[in-house]
Amino acid sequence: MKRINVAILGCGTVGGGVAKIMSEIQTELNTRADGELILKSIVELKPKVAAERFNIPLDLFCGSGKDLTPTEATAYINEIIASPEVDIIVETIGGTNDFVHKICLDTVNTGKHLITANKALLAERGTDIFEAAEAKGVKIGFEAAVCGAIPIIKTIKENLTGDKIMSVSGIMNGTSNYILSQMQNYNLEFDTALKMAQESGFAEADPTLDINGGDAGHKLILLIKLAYGIDVSMDDLSIIGIENIKKEDIDFANEIQAKIKLICYAKKVNGDIYATVRPMMVKNSNFLSGVDGATNAVRINNKYSGKHILIGKGAGSSETAMSIVSDMVFISRYGEKIRNTAEKQERNFADARQFVFPYIITFHTGDVPGTTGFITTAIGLQDINIDTVSHNRHSEEKAVFSVATMPCTLDKIETAIAYIKTERPNMLLSEPKVMPILF
Amino acid sequence: MKRINVAILGCGTVGGGVAKIMSEIQTELNTRADGELILKSIVELKPKVAAERFNIPLDLFCGSGKDLTPTEATAYINEIIASPEVDIIVETIGGTNDFVHKICLDTVNTGKHLITANKALLAERGTDIFEAAEAKGVKIGFEAAVCGAIPIIKTIKENLTGDKIMSVSGIMNGTSNYILSQMQNYNLEFDTALKMAQESGFAEADPTLDINGGDAGHKLILLIKLAYGIDVSMDDLSIIGIENIKKEDIDFANEIQAKIKLICYAKKVNGDIYATVRPMMVKNSNFLSGVDGATNAVRINNKYSGKHILIGKGAGSSETAMSIVSDMVFISRYGEKIRNTAEKQERNFADARQFVFPYIITFHTGDVPGTTGFITTAIGLQDINIDTVSHNRHSEEKAVFSVATMPCTLDKIETAIAYIKTERPNMLLSEPKVMPILF
Repeated sequence: MKRINVAILGCGTVGGGVAKIMSEIQTELNTRADGELILKSIVELKPKVAAERFNIPLDLFCGSGKDLTPTEATAYINEIIASPEVDIIVETIGGTNDFVHKICLDTVNTGKHLITANKALLAERGTDIFEAAEAKGVKIGFEAAVCGAIPIIKTIKENLTGDKIMSVSGIMNGTSNYILSQMQNYNLEFDTALKMAQESGFAEADPTLDINGGDAGHKLILLIKLAYGIDVSMDDLSIIGIENIKKEDIDFANEIQAKIKLICYAKKVNGDIYATVRPMMVKNSNFLSGVDGATNAVRINNKYSGKHILIGKGAGSSETAMSIVSDMVFISRYGEKIRNTAEKQERNFADARQFVFPYIITFHTGDVPGTTGFITTAIGLQDINIDTVSHNRHSEEKAVFSVATMPCTLDKIETAIAYIKTERPNMLLSEPKVMPILF
Repeated sequence: MKRINVAILGCGTVGGGVAKIMSEIQTELNTRADGELILKSIVELKPKVAAERFNIPLDLFCGSGKDLTPTEATAYINEIIASPEVDIIVETIGGTNDFVHKICLDTVNTGKHLITANKALLAERGTDIFEAAEAKGVKIGFEAAVCGAIPIIKTIKENLTGDKIMSVSGIMNGTSNYILSQMQNYNLEFDTALKMAQESGFAEADPTLDINGGDAGHKLILLIKLAYGIDVSMDDLSIIGIENIKKEDIDFANEIQAKIKLICYAKKVNGDIYATVRPMMVKNSNFLSGVDGATNAVRINNKYSGKHILIGKGAGSSETAMSIVSDMVFISRYGEKIRNTAEKQERNFADARQFVFPYIITFHTGDVPGTTGFITTAIGLQDINIDTVSHNRHSEEKAVFSVATMPCTLDKIETAIAYIKTERPNMLLSEPKVMPILF
């Protein structure tokens, strides 16, 4: 049986989980991998903490278990990258800085397979790493980088290969979904729900990337690469986070049998790819509306086989580690035959402002007769058909009301809003909130 | 680029779908397959019908498009099986008779890969086919045999390989789920819902295998083989179908915030495998309760990565064909490295009567004081803790009431029921209905 030597760089929550699974179900893994998966060495600044938390023998750590300075750790990492004995490097350090980027690039350039959960790095600075892997014929396993335990990468790349993907959408950030669920279930404002999420460990001390849609954007970029073979940037996605969602928005969603979810959405229309990340009004008839808490879900709509939904844990130590170990098994078994991404396609990436959805627009205005008429007329002038107009609330001489449109572009809606602002400078008391409706 | 020659035996709903997809997205398939997938020949008794329905050139059919007698078709099939030019045979004839069994066995024995949607054959008579494939080093693709378009086979065999499966459950028969959904949504009795399903094409003229749980059982047998590496028979599963579900059962499910679903369930407990197919009371908090109509869903509970849910189309021409084509791509790309099933495991298959669930038992009795006390006492005598007792209905001197138990074995419940029958021969007006509760 062939031997596959593995090194883990960074033994925190995810890296430690990998070491634990590798030791606990070694026999099963070797059969599935068609080879002996050997955990050769681990580089970690604080080995004792990791060893105790994940029950790892200290002698597996470079430096035999003593704490390492960053310089020492870097030296060990370079040694591992240079070693002809290591076959697979698991990068679980995280971050997008030059240090981590160089580790990943050097790994593939020295002919080693790379497995990583680092969605930010692959999405923002991954192009040269994928190119180098292609040139060297080595593999990049990044199942853990998108939606934790959900095997969405292999589902697209290996399982649904008899089809054409029309759209990919989903809830891909557990923290923001947890916050929205808490707002929904306990009638909370955003700030309170965020604080609770931080206290209970569902949000980091710095939750920026989770709540501003950045993390979800990274995942969508990787899925677009797989589903459509094109590279897009964070700017292309015109990402909107959940920071501005208010209790009143959630209340209104309830009224119209919907839930507000941070949705990643990519769709092929006549050969063009449209994609965006933003809060959407998900009707209760759509499965994604029922996905609560830190759970992730991905929906694929295929030409031949219709809708597929995958639901699972989006984060967590052993959950994410499982995806890394499954990549290890897959690379070990199928090796050079694996392809890292989808076939490159000549497709245009279209402006998200041209993305056609039914939209819901919420206006805050004075409670003045004629307002509804003026606003709906302005929308109609853009050739947008209106589905319903609902007054959410009248109070203290203010009105909150929402217009649900038939499918149209965001561009037209923005033009209509600009027209209202120009023609009636005092009509809108705040910036209208525009959300796609997902049926 | 290597060439992979494919023959399709039987060009009905599924086989025709395969030919259609192969011709429509040939370029994408070849890239994914790392080889040129060539549809070499098709054997079909009525080629003209199939050619027109699926837009297939007549010259691809053996006999150049003329109708074949069964004898002629058999001769062509034998010719294809004997041909050294064919690499993959797609069997979409169906059935479990000797004729089809021999086709599949001969296919692998002559060193060809077999792809089939024939769950009944593989589940009931598949052992020697799998053994022959192992001996010859050829592959059996059966993604299409379990839950149509849902890629559950590859999900277990290739994607979740870094984990241990604790349980597999799900809704695996679209027809019975459609009937139960119709009963639920339109307040129908079983017979009416079945008739409607037949009229709208969701049930066959002979729906036996769909409604008696047989078809679901076939799928569960294949999943148990993959998840736990053991072969079980239909008898092992103690299958119960949906034929005896009444409107009053559905009404009662509504009352307790549950839906009745035909559930396949296999679970590992202390190394033993428990499995069964039967109607269960699925609480609305469980995702499976929301899976309506002809949709299928599978839930996998894993040691490390927790719950995974896959939802998709369980049947249909292009849906099932997609799974066959994806097997073709996978076999072409990864060839001999693929393993056909899971590692064999030394496990006991346990009696389903020892399967521990919370159960709900529905009794029809006379409306006589003392009845509830006697029945609940009889249940308690078996060391079964009772969760709730609900009287569904009192009318015309009859009472229908349900006892929800804490987790216990079916065996104990049956003993309690036997005790009631012996001690109070006239108390029960009909056989009590026993259903596991799924939270």
